[in-house]
Amino acid sequence: MSHEPILNRVSCPADLHDLTAAERTALCEEIRQFLLSHIAETGGHLASNLGAVELTVALHMEYDTARDRLVFDVGHQAYVHKLLTGRREGFANLRRFGGMSGFPKPEESIHDAFIAGHASTSISAATGMARARTLLREQYDVVALIGDGALSGGMAYEALNDAGRSGEPLVVVLNDNDMSISKSVGAIAQYLSRIRLRPSYTKLKNGVKRALRAIPGGKRLERWTHNFKKRFKYLLLPATIFEDMGFQYVGPADGHDIEEVRRLLRYAKEQHCPVLVHVKTVKGKGYRFSQEKPETFHGTGSFDPETGRPLKESVPTTFSDVFGAELSAIAAEEPRVCAITAAMPVGTGLSGFAERFPERFIDVGIAEEHAVTMAAGMAKQGMIPVVALYSTFLQRAYDQLIHDAAIHPLHMVFCIDRAGISGEDGETHQGLFDPAFLATIPHMTILCPANDRELRRALRRAIFEETGPVAIRYPKGRSGAFRENSMDEPAPCLMAAEEPRAVLLSYGILINPSMEAAQALADAGIPVSVIKCNCIKPLPVPEIRRAMGDCRRLFVIEDTIENGSVSQRLAAALPDCRVSGLTAGDAFLRCGSVAELQTLLGLDAAGIADRIKKELTE
Amino acid sequence: MSHEPILNRVSCPADLHDLTAAERTALCEEIRQFLLSHIAETGGHLASNLGAVELTVALHMEYDTARDRLVFDVGHQAYVHKLLTGRREGFANLRRFGGMSGFPKPEESIHDAFIAGHASTSISAATGMARARTLLREQYDVVALIGDGALSGGMAYEALNDAGRSGEPLVVVLNDNDMSISKSVGAIAQYLSRIRLRPSYTKLKNGVKRALRAIPGGKRLERWTHNFKKRFKYLLLPATIFEDMGFQYVGPADGHDIEEVRRLLRYAKEQHCPVLVHVKTVKGKGYRFSQEKPETFHGTGSFDPETGRPLKESVPTTFSDVFGAELSAIAAEEPRVCAITAAMPVGTGLSGFAERFPERFIDVGIAEEHAVTMAAGMAKQGMIPVVALYSTFLQRAYDQLIHDAAIHPLHMVFCIDRAGISGEDGETHQGLFDPAFLATIPHMTILCPANDRELRRALRRAIFEETGPVAIRYPKGRSGAFRENSMDEPAPCLMAAEEPRAVLLSYGILINPSMEAAQALADAGIPVSVIKCNCIKPLPVPEIRRAMGDCRRLFVIEDTIENGSVSQRLAAALPDCRVSGLTAGDAFLRCGSVAELQTLLGLDAAGIADRIKKELTE
Repeated sequence: MSHEPILNRVSCPADLHDLTAAERTALCEEIRQFLLSHIAETGGHLASNLGAVELTVALHMEYDTARDRLVFDVGHQAYVHKLLTGRREGFANLRRFGGMSGFPKPEESIHDAFIAGHASTSISAATGMARARTLLREQYDVVALIGDGALSGGMAYEALNDAGRSGEPLVVVLNDNDMSISKSVGAIAQYLSRIRLRPSYTKLKNGVKRALRAIPGGKRLERWTHNFKKRFKYLLLPATIFEDMGFQYVGPADGHDIEEVRRLLRYAKEQHCPVLVHVKTVKGKGYRFSQEKPETFHGTGSFDPETGRPLKESVPTTFSDVFGAELSAIAAEEPRVCAITAAMPVGTGLSGFAERFPERFIDVGIAEEHAVTMAAGMAKQGMIPVVALYSTFLQRAYDQLIHDAAIHPLHMVFCIDRAGISGEDGETHQGLFDPAFLATIPHMTILCPANDRELRRALRRAIFEETGPVAIRYPKGRSGAFRENSMDEPAPCLMAAEEPRAVLLSYGILINPSMEAAQALADAGIPVSVIKCNCIKPLPVPEIRRAMGDCRRLFVIEDTIENGSVSQRLAAALPDCRVSGLTAGDAFLRCGSVAELQTLLGLDAAGIADRIKKELTE
Repeated sequence: MSHEPILNRVSCPADLHDLTAAERTALCEEIRQFLLSHIAETGGHLASNLGAVELTVALHMEYDTARDRLVFDVGHQAYVHKLLTGRREGFANLRRFGGMSGFPKPEESIHDAFIAGHASTSISAATGMARARTLLREQYDVVALIGDGALSGGMAYEALNDAGRSGEPLVVVLNDNDMSISKSVGAIAQYLSRIRLRPSYTKLKNGVKRALRAIPGGKRLERWTHNFKKRFKYLLLPATIFEDMGFQYVGPADGHDIEEVRRLLRYAKEQHCPVLVHVKTVKGKGYRFSQEKPETFHGTGSFDPETGRPLKESVPTTFSDVFGAELSAIAAEEPRVCAITAAMPVGTGLSGFAERFPERFIDVGIAEEHAVTMAAGMAKQGMIPVVALYSTFLQRAYDQLIHDAAIHPLHMVFCIDRAGISGEDGETHQGLFDPAFLATIPHMTILCPANDRELRRALRRAIFEETGPVAIRYPKGRSGAFRENSMDEPAPCLMAAEEPRAVLLSYGILINPSMEAAQALADAGIPVSVIKCNCIKPLPVPEIRRAMGDCRRLFVIEDTIENGSVSQRLAAALPDCRVSGLTAGDAFLRCGSVAELQTLLGLDAAGIADRIKKELTE
């Protein structure tokens, strides 16, 4: 018997068919080891991928993903898919600058059907693909793979509703690990757990059929049940919400049994209508630590596979931690304060709050739109809701911010985590849009703390001093060099040159490289002043003017999309000044470390200094 | 017997209790007459309100809306509520400038619990209110009133999911008229129609209880069914999707039977948990023409109540009509073109297309998020989807535009109707945000036709010449004076003064008052040039520079929110020019005619000329 890994014999999905069932089972263990050793080094999404190994193998045996369309949902569970579709080498540079994306990416492989970084999009995209196939009279299968967490997002329901009515042949595989990122919440999650406890629905159905055939006249009865299927279903069989929405339902199946999953997929394919295949999996499966604490190993940095501990010994306090701790302190003083999150209690730093104030902590599941409007309802009736979301996910609730928070206007606080460049997750997860889209909203105040003390102050100001909607934006991770608390001044001048050639203005943590750049410019004989802008809506234009003194040359440094940026707004507000914006431009930003991406955009100290030197000497 | 109208005896909801049941029935007829005669004069939402008369009376008898919170959804069905809560006089100026809003508005009355102009928000807001009530230990009831159309929106599902799990006492009244605005679509609509055909679920349930009590040992069986309610339900009773989501379900009831509705509401109130009350109504009820064609009388201008015909004899061709006709012409040439709408086939001008190309016409229901991503799936597989939405509703799909359309990027066309000031529906329906939020999106092209010929040209260019996502924005109604087709030039100079004191730049139909203003300024001895900008992303900066010649003073005229506007972007792009923006500012815009609101914002010819004269002479 050879010790050659089976994985070496799988360079494309078709190779799976050359293996025996036992070899495929062994392959799954090798895949787990591969993922574990690589992710321990590069970091990445571990637990969801460990849970989807057999399921992904089964999918690749029943579908040809080069032709059929396999649409992932929140595609961080696509690692096994990437591994099986010829991208083994890519794992050495997973999520690194210039390396392989942690999400499906059509430009990376023909096997990646659609971009998927945000939740609940897969059934929509798959429905469109199925329709296009039928209209263009082509022949291929379309499968959406969605987790139970993503199923709490309203889009998934909109899509089920539309797909169910369309009757388009389409398979939705529900990968149900009862988790999403944290433990799934909501009535649908409870409902799924009830289904999970039932005997396999498919088995039950077949059992009923057999029983009918066995009794006299049963054949006629069976025909009758076929014709009156829906009526019959309500009377004799457990109904599922999916059938109410026009889907055939099969399952639940053991998602770690390749052959069982294949059987269901084959059955589903034969139905030529929308079918939902319900598969149960265990998140983090096969690695002790991730199985015990799947949440910790959802998205992880590098760690020691022996102990499950992160490699960097002491994880520094992040903005999220500071936010969570301060909000708890405030909630102890003010009973009207409550916290709302959309499936991100840990990521947003709210676990401590959730433990201490369970009644005032609300996790609505992956449902940002509802989170904002639900919180607006609370605000309308006298609570002070603090809604904590990542910048990129708040995009989902743009209309709700306008329509339900701002028109009234209501006193609500939006704590926007992962604002600005946020690194390894790439295009779909950067927080580049919030300064622009939030600024369009009347009555909205936007505060930009740059360190712990400023974040605490901003939070108190938003809760105790403001009366309308307030957004507080802060980035992933740590604050950097800036140590003062300047929050009470809207636009303090941090470095005042005597006769400055230009003024640098920044907000949030980019004040750190801006100050460094200013120092470098001063050292090179180019004196510049630096203004820190603590509130970007409304813009403190008179204070900025005062801080600028007689200087009429302004550089605005910000890691945000160009259109709608602070630099554009200041260019309009200061018509007698010449304003240049150092922004992320008009482009999406790929994966890489925050530092690498800052350098790429010319937003590190050297890049800022170079650009300013160049513009001033032109 | 007095001929005094009963309506005169109802100045507040409490007065309803002083009437006999027969008087209340007669009152409902009077209310219908009142609505009919007033809306025939002012225009407004007729059919939905005629359908909700008895339901609203019943709600006001069981709830004290000054204390309890009655949350409307797409609040245009709140007219009867307004009439019963002391706003009878307001109907003379309904939806007029300075007059009463056509939607619930807390600043208008203590009886209006929440703003509601967009769909599917009520259950979210009500869930938040119920939570706030419990946390603040207050005593009042919370009711959300939602139509079956709004139930297809994902937010409603997110909210049911969260509310169902919360267990908060809360009543959701489903006003089911099988309509929304057009005929409801989607699997949920089909599902509701199945429920509608069933005997009243409540009756059936009670029947089963009685039957159980009648048989020996039945009492025990009943207790057993109580304990194992869920299991029992699946075996014996029709399950409803709402029960799967944690709601108690009662209904369906005849929504035109005040006493029946009251009974269900009282029952629901006693349950102290989330309850869904299913009520069937007939949209347009009681007026022959609106009952026959509820869609025509959804939102209407003034009309002759005798004939049901609009007062203005020939309705002029609108941008929406031109769009629909041209898209049909294009679809006849190009089989990959398909049209997608979210419950607005008539409003967006697509009825003709739908008839001619039923296979390529997709109405996803009120589900903008899904509409965009579903269309993206179609585009990915080779179709050319044209998504027609109102500007204000596209706000819902901001994230999907970024994440599913632009990152790829995919060739898709977004036809954005009701862009800019859109009049009588007020704050919640103005199209002021799209130029700003669309401009933030990389790869997005934004075209701004100003008349029929330009719209047709823009559509052909978007479909046949562009390769990424393209938005075409055009306003409600007609085009105005501008008659050329300048679409092939990005920034043509329409009026070139010899030595202009300033240049006026506008896009879309505001080019009309801008040209008029330029003429008035010229007449007053202030020569100015006029540039029409046909593409606002990317901005044709070199062409604008060329058209400006040596002039360095630019006025940008646009009916859009200030932050993120074209004027701010041009201020940044033209650092050597002085740019002033004439915009809608940083505020929401109330109801009124388009002309009145243009004047209010200083965007009519006189306002533009005055402002420019003033700025130039400062």
